[in-house]
Amino acid sequence: MANTKTHTLEKHLGQIPGSVIYTGKKKSQKLFIETFDYNKEQCAEKELTSVQESFEFKLTDSITWVNLNGLNHVNEIEKLGAHYGLHPLVLEDIVNISQRPKIDEYENYIFVVLKMLYYDENEAIVSEQVSFILGESYVLSFQESEGDVFNSVRDRIRHAKGRIRNMKSDYLLYTLIDAIVDHYFSVIEILGDKIEDFETAIFSGDIDDDVSQKIQNLKREILRVRRAIFPLREVINRIEKNENKLIQKRTITYYRDIYDHLIQVSENIDIYREMIWSLMDMYMTTISNKMNEVMKVLTIMASIFIPLTFIAGIYGMNFEYIPELHYKYSYFILWGVMIVLFVAMLFYFKRKKWL
Amino acid sequence: MANTKTHTLEKHLGQIPGSVIYTGKKKSQKLFIETFDYNKEQCAEKELTSVQESFEFKLTDSITWVNLNGLNHVNEIEKLGAHYGLHPLVLEDIVNISQRPKIDEYENYIFVVLKMLYYDENEAIVSEQVSFILGESYVLSFQESEGDVFNSVRDRIRHAKGRIRNMKSDYLLYTLIDAIVDHYFSVIEILGDKIEDFETAIFSGDIDDDVSQKIQNLKREILRVRRAIFPLREVINRIEKNENKLIQKRTITYYRDIYDHLIQVSENIDIYREMIWSLMDMYMTTISNKMNEVMKVLTIMASIFIPLTFIAGIYGMNFEYIPELHYKYSYFILWGVMIVLFVAMLFYFKRKKWL
Amino acid sequence: MANTKTHTLEKHLGQIPGSVIYTGKKKSQKLFIETFDYNKEQCAEKELTSVQESFEFKLTDSITWVNLNGLNHVNEIEKLGAHYGLHPLVLEDIVNISQRPKIDEYENYIFVVLKMLYYDENEAIVSEQVSFILGESYVLSFQESEGDVFNSVRDRIRHAKGRIRNMKSDYLLYTLIDAIVDHYFSVIEILGDKIEDFETAIFSGDIDDDVSQKIQNLKREILRVRRAIFPLREVINRIEKNENKLIQKRTITYYRDIYDHLIQVSENIDIYREMIWSLMDMYMTTISNKMNEVMKVLTIMASIFIPLTFIAGIYGMNFEYIPELHYKYSYFILWGVMIVLFVAMLFYFKRKKWL
Amino acid sequence: MANTKTHTLEKHLGQIPGSVIYTGKKKSQKLFIETFDYNKEQCAEKELTSVQESFEFKLTDSITWVNLNGLNHVNEIEKLGAHYGLHPLVLEDIVNISQRPKIDEYENYIFVVLKMLYYDENEAIVSEQVSFILGESYVLSFQESEGDVFNSVRDRIRHAKGRIRNMKSDYLLYTLIDAIVDHYFSVIEILGDKIEDFETAIFSGDIDDDVSQKIQNLKREILRVRRAIFPLREVINRIEKNENKLIQKRTITYYRDIYDHLIQVSENIDIYREMIWSLMDMYMTTISNKMNEVMKVLTIMASIFIPLTFIAGIYGMNFEYIPELHYKYSYFILWGVMIVLFVAMLFYFKRKKWL
Amino acid sequence: MANTKTHTLEKHLGQIPGSVIYTGKKKSQKLFIETFDYNKEQCAEKELTSVQESFEFKLTDSITWVNLNGLNHVNEIEKLGAHYGLHPLVLEDIVNISQRPKIDEYENYIFVVLKMLYYDENEAIVSEQVSFILGESYVLSFQESEGDVFNSVRDRIRHAKGRIRNMKSDYLLYTLIDAIVDHYFSVIEILGDKIEDFETAIFSGDIDDDVSQKIQNLKREILRVRRAIFPLREVINRIEKNENKLIQKRTITYYRDIYDHLIQVSENIDIYREMIWSLMDMYMTTISNKMNEVMKVLTIMASIFIPLTFIAGIYGMNFEYIPELHYKYSYFILWGVMIVLFVAMLFYFKRKKWL
Repeated sequence: MANTKTHTLEKHLGQIPGSVIYTGKKKSQKLFIETFDYNKEQCAEKELTSVQESFEFKLTDSITWVNLNGLNHVNEIEKLGAHYGLHPLVLEDIVNISQRPKIDEYENYIFVVLKMLYYDENEAIVSEQVSFILGESYVLSFQESEGDVFNSVRDRIRHAKGRIRNMKSDYLLYTLIDAIVDHYFSVIEILGDKIEDFETAIFSGDIDDDVSQKIQNLKREILRVRRAIFPLREVINRIEKNENKLIQKRTITYYRDIYDHLIQVSENIDIYREMIWSLMDMYMTTISNKMNEVMKVLTIMASIFIPLTFIAGIYGMNFEYIPELHYKYSYFILWGVMIVLFVAMLFYFKRKKWL
Repeated sequence: MANTKTHTLEKHLGQIPGSVIYTGKKKSQKLFIETFDYNKEQCAEKELTSVQESFEFKLTDSITWVNLNGLNHVNEIEKLGAHYGLHPLVLEDIVNISQRPKIDEYENYIFVVLKMLYYDENEAIVSEQVSFILGESYVLSFQESEGDVFNSVRDRIRHAKGRIRNMKSDYLLYTLIDAIVDHYFSVIEILGDKIEDFETAIFSGDIDDDVSQKIQNLKREILRVRRAIFPLREVINRIEKNENKLIQKRTITYYRDIYDHLIQVSENIDIYREMIWSLMDMYMTTISNKMNEVMKVLTIMASIFIPLTFIAGIYGMNFEYIPELHYKYSYFILWGVMIVLFVAMLFYFKRKKWL
Repeated sequence: MANTKTHTLEKHLGQIPGSVIYTGKKKSQKLFIETFDYNKEQCAEKELTSVQESFEFKLTDSITWVNLNGLNHVNEIEKLGAHYGLHPLVLEDIVNISQRPKIDEYENYIFVVLKMLYYDENEAIVSEQVSFILGESYVLSFQESEGDVFNSVRDRIRHAKGRIRNMKSDYLLYTLIDAIVDHYFSVIEILGDKIEDFETAIFSGDIDDDVSQKIQNLKREILRVRRAIFPLREVINRIEKNENKLIQKRTITYYRDIYDHLIQVSENIDIYREMIWSLMDMYMTTISNKMNEVMKVLTIMASIFIPLTFIAGIYGMNFEYIPELHYKYSYFILWGVMIVLFVAMLFYFKRKKWL
Repeated sequence: MANTKTHTLEKHLGQIPGSVIYTGKKKSQKLFIETFDYNKEQCAEKELTSVQESFEFKLTDSITWVNLNGLNHVNEIEKLGAHYGLHPLVLEDIVNISQRPKIDEYENYIFVVLKMLYYDENEAIVSEQVSFILGESYVLSFQESEGDVFNSVRDRIRHAKGRIRNMKSDYLLYTLIDAIVDHYFSVIEILGDKIEDFETAIFSGDIDDDVSQKIQNLKREILRVRRAIFPLREVINRIEKNENKLIQKRTITYYRDIYDHLIQVSENIDIYREMIWSLMDMYMTTISNKMNEVMKVLTIMASIFIPLTFIAGIYGMNFEYIPELHYKYSYFILWGVMIVLFVAMLFYFKRKKWL
Repeated sequence: MANTKTHTLEKHLGQIPGSVIYTGKKKSQKLFIETFDYNKEQCAEKELTSVQESFEFKLTDSITWVNLNGLNHVNEIEKLGAHYGLHPLVLEDIVNISQRPKIDEYENYIFVVLKMLYYDENEAIVSEQVSFILGESYVLSFQESEGDVFNSVRDRIRHAKGRIRNMKSDYLLYTLIDAIVDHYFSVIEILGDKIEDFETAIFSGDIDDDVSQKIQNLKREILRVRRAIFPLREVINRIEKNENKLIQKRTITYYRDIYDHLIQVSENIDIYREMIWSLMDMYMTTISNKMNEVMKVLTIMASIFIPLTFIAGIYGMNFEYIPELHYKYSYFILWGVMIVLFVAMLFYFKRKKWL
């Protein structure tokens, strides 16, 4: 997914609504399922190889987190969906990785899609889709592949850090989303450093020919990040504002906190956006200034030597009667005249501040 | 309709409101009517040559889809309209192909107009108007000419794929609109590829003189697509939000799905729009950079050779008393001086990074 | 009114509110009043020379349309206003031709102001103010001068075409506004053609020095049209949305139709606007490209001939000891060297794609 | 106040809220108070030198207008405020001349601040703050110095012109605001003329070096006017919409009229704004076009004469064996060759439309 | 904090929600706590070294202001928070100095975060976070380090200036926020002066190479100020609009006054923003104009002397038969021709206004 294509539209034309078809590129991903089942007193952690093993948890009173990696295993996802009573369109959206962040509220569960962002080893931004199903006593999460930003959450569940073990599934969903949003900050930080380094490079004149290509790439990275983050604000806002029985009142404050963070991130994105747009302007003036300097050198050289060459040309003519040619000191006088002209020119350009 | 004109306004001045006048260019299109009449158990498919043959279906309990191709046959359309009790303004809008996507709710039916987009054989975007009438047990559709994106729908009806045969006419309308919106994705995909190819071409310097014309054409294509797609969002939103007795509650979820797709498409269009606008900037800097390079070559050549020519000119003068002319090694010394000057210049331009 | 001034502000400072003062330039316009008085069965058409003659119609049950041309006749207008019980501010607005399109609802009547647009013989856009008073059984219309777009309406009343003779005064108002809005389409069409012709001219390089002036003029025409049309949308929207007893429910559909047309026109105006803005960009790149071409010619000529001239200058020097001068084939060898240099240069510029 | 500074922020840091401190520059203004006390039958006009003399009017049934000039006399204003029971923050705002137009509704009175605009003798826009207090039977107005746009109002009160003497204090406030808004039209008219003159100058090429400075100044004037006028729309809108017992229902129509005027003025300001922004573009293309012309002259001269000079240089060489030198007609043949070259060049540049 | 980095994002990844971790750089700041406890009659002022000493005040009826400096002392802040019953997320926000200005309403208190702006000794804008907790009889304030804009408030409390000692804690909060907002005016004033000085410099041509860097820096300063001030408007608006029992009705007027001030400041910021954007344009035209001038000098010199040099070259040729060489006056005639050419050229350039 580290490609630079901006459009990741994928739609199978003519497909029946509710068809569960994986649209990503990681077709050979191994299925990996982990579950956490916990309450105030205890916590059970398991790694599964098929979804059936997770079905037992649905019955327990404790909070269950089922984390499925590998969206290419559509059959398993369909089985899980059937077990939890998910709408076919929800399943279709989970495996279609070109979703916009959104929230859909159903009778017994809430469906949230968002994007996890990180820089990969090639310094390219990766945007991986993560879907959540929030039920009364469970959270299901779906990721394209292993590797995520949830380790701190796992840790907190395992070791009962903070209040997570005392809270319901809505708080679990909050911590998961919060972990993703926290990571936005570091992505944004790297992006900001890139832009500032680049700006410094332009100011110091240390630029090469592909400046505009680099600017274009930065613009695209920002577009990518915007697309992942901006719609999420509305999603969180809806969680905070709507009164859904699945979100407890005391948890709302925490979602409001995420919302504040998203606003902060968005503001920074818009600032970077504006900075990049002025970088282009700046680059244009840098080019113009350079051209100006080139022109000045040309003009000074030409303006000084063309008239002098003309004078030399005059006395290179072969007319029989050129009186000056025969005076003894003409040559030296001419040199004097030329030097005076030369100095006058220099003085003129100095006054014009071209030198 | 593969012209590049942006304005497709067509209005017959002074015409009486409700006049049913076809405004398109396909005046000699053959009339082609097909009907599907189906319920859970069975499905009847027919091709008709006059609208009268379709009247019988209105009475049946089953769901009927009447698909009429050939908007130039206004008489047939008027007959159909009379039979189904359509308002004169609706009939006027059906055959006036410069409608904006819109929805009008009447007593017993809903009138929806939208645009079907595809690329024709000349790689030009074609925008064909499609109108729908949704009644309690029927859907009427009107197209300018044969050829559409509904084959998958026909297939699903025929072979009872998915849930279409178990649902009402509102679901049929949904599948038809969904088929059109699905096709927007492939149009957008092609448009995106065009823009990216073009961008690559600009960056690689592989550009010809008509770049700005091509950019202008791309801008127009995007304008066309925007005009077709953006108003449709509002249309679908109104279907989803308004509580019309013709749209069942369980179908609303499906319309919301279309709405999500439209938001995705719109977002991509806006991204392409922005990319094209920066392409213009990029092209401008490319031009400036090229001019800069031209100027540098000129300046280097002139700055090096004009002074040298001046020196040569000096010793081409015919003064009787030029002492240097008579020293034996003057010529070689002069060459030395010139070479030193030449190298100094090169060194100077090197330091200025012009070489 | 065919001037190109954008500001047509006219306000008599310190005037008492409700003063009926004509602000236009057609001070010597002849008063011309025509009336139509019709119902289902019959239609009476009259031309009057004073407003008094029209007073009788107010009493009849039939629908009356009083069309007054010549806003300079403020006394007549005041008499008419007194007879129909119009508010002084309404009369002031009718004769002040710099109104923005607007609707004011009063107790017994609705006051609507809008702009009639057409191209005059100099291809300049003319914007003429038309005011309407809609009462229960009458419509009063006020125009600055004779000549309008209402002929089709007159015709329909006379010959009972369409449903106009069966409808109330609200439908009459609709047909009048519809006639004006229909005409916007043809104005917009001409404007669009102008822009596209102009664009073609820029692309073909067939441009003269006043391009930017022409662009500025086009911008202004669009501003004019925008000012006339955009506020009208809100006016019609208010008619459609507000529940005024003077507008019957069955007529609302027709006003919605006008609203759709206005949205279409507005959309086209915005597209033209955007196209003009990119024309300016395009023109700038055209200029830059031309300059680039000029620079290339200069650079090629100078870069080739300046070094060659330098070489010629060397052997034009008069040193006594220049060994080459005395070899027999020096001259021909030199020609060879020069030709090689010349070809190398050409090759170099070819590779740089300057040739 | 005729300075060109855009920021007229004046705040005394650390001052206690409600401190009545004059922030303008007219510190030595003479206090001048005039009062009008009128009803249907009669009108008493007085000039006072202290505010105490105006206190008697508060008790009368008649309408009273107290117009105070000289905001530097804060003590008098505080006395007046105490007598009429004004809030300390209102008094602070009256004498702080950097207020934005606003309306504050208090228990027994409405406080309105707005800006009076006019061009002073140096053709600079002056923006003078005027505050109004509307009570049940009185209007207080506060101006920085003598000289205003209220003469027509005074006249109407004195001579009972129009309906002013039959109306309440809310109508008096209306006429005062209307007088100010009327004056905006003439300011806007002058501004429009300036812009159009300037545009004509740019098109005719009759420009000097400070064009961009002039454009910047025009931009600032428009900013000033915008800041004075735009917030006033909201003020009037609130008067019109809010149901304040101090504003009678029959006066609302008049305020709506002011609102319409403000919309007209605002629209014109935005048009001027847009025109100025395109002036800058236009100026840029003018500069580019001029540079283009300069470059063409240089290129033509250099391209023609550099090759010819080279040829002359060839035959100025001193090789012993240059066969051409000895043919009798070489010189004339060479002239022929040169003339042919010259004409070919001219023809080439002609075809390129550089001549 | 006087760095020029725009992004001050600081988030500890994976941290448990409600973790109180200081994110600023002043890690070794000394803890400094001052308290004011006052009512109508008396006022006690104390400086403390630990938060425990302040706990007694919570019980008194009098108004208490606890001002804590040194956000690095998180333990003390946590103790204070525990004593006053603050939510963990509030404590987290207090010490995380990258908050956006915001207001959070809790059961018994209101939490307000905003930014104090001032210029430091390096003329760089410093933005320091200040948090307030408004309880029924107390205000807690938290600052990163000593030094603030509250001296006038302290003074008013001490000496019972104004009405502060007669009012509740909501009025104390108002005076504190007002002091901060007042200081925005002076920051804005300095910023405005910088921009105008800079503008004057550009117009007078007195510019150096880092103009675009300076413009970029100004843009950033404005961004910083915007980010601090713009969200505050919404905060104050919410205080004014929401009916919170902690804000008394009579204090609302004062908050509305702050709101007015913020609107004034915001308006100025937007004006400066726009001015800076046009500065860039202006600078571009300045560069273009300079280049134009350079080109003219080059063109004039080259156009005059290149043809003359060509003529001289002609008569420097060594053909045996050049008749002109032998006429006695050729040399002088040639000079005449050259002078005529020279004057003609000058005249031509004069007419073109290049001289």
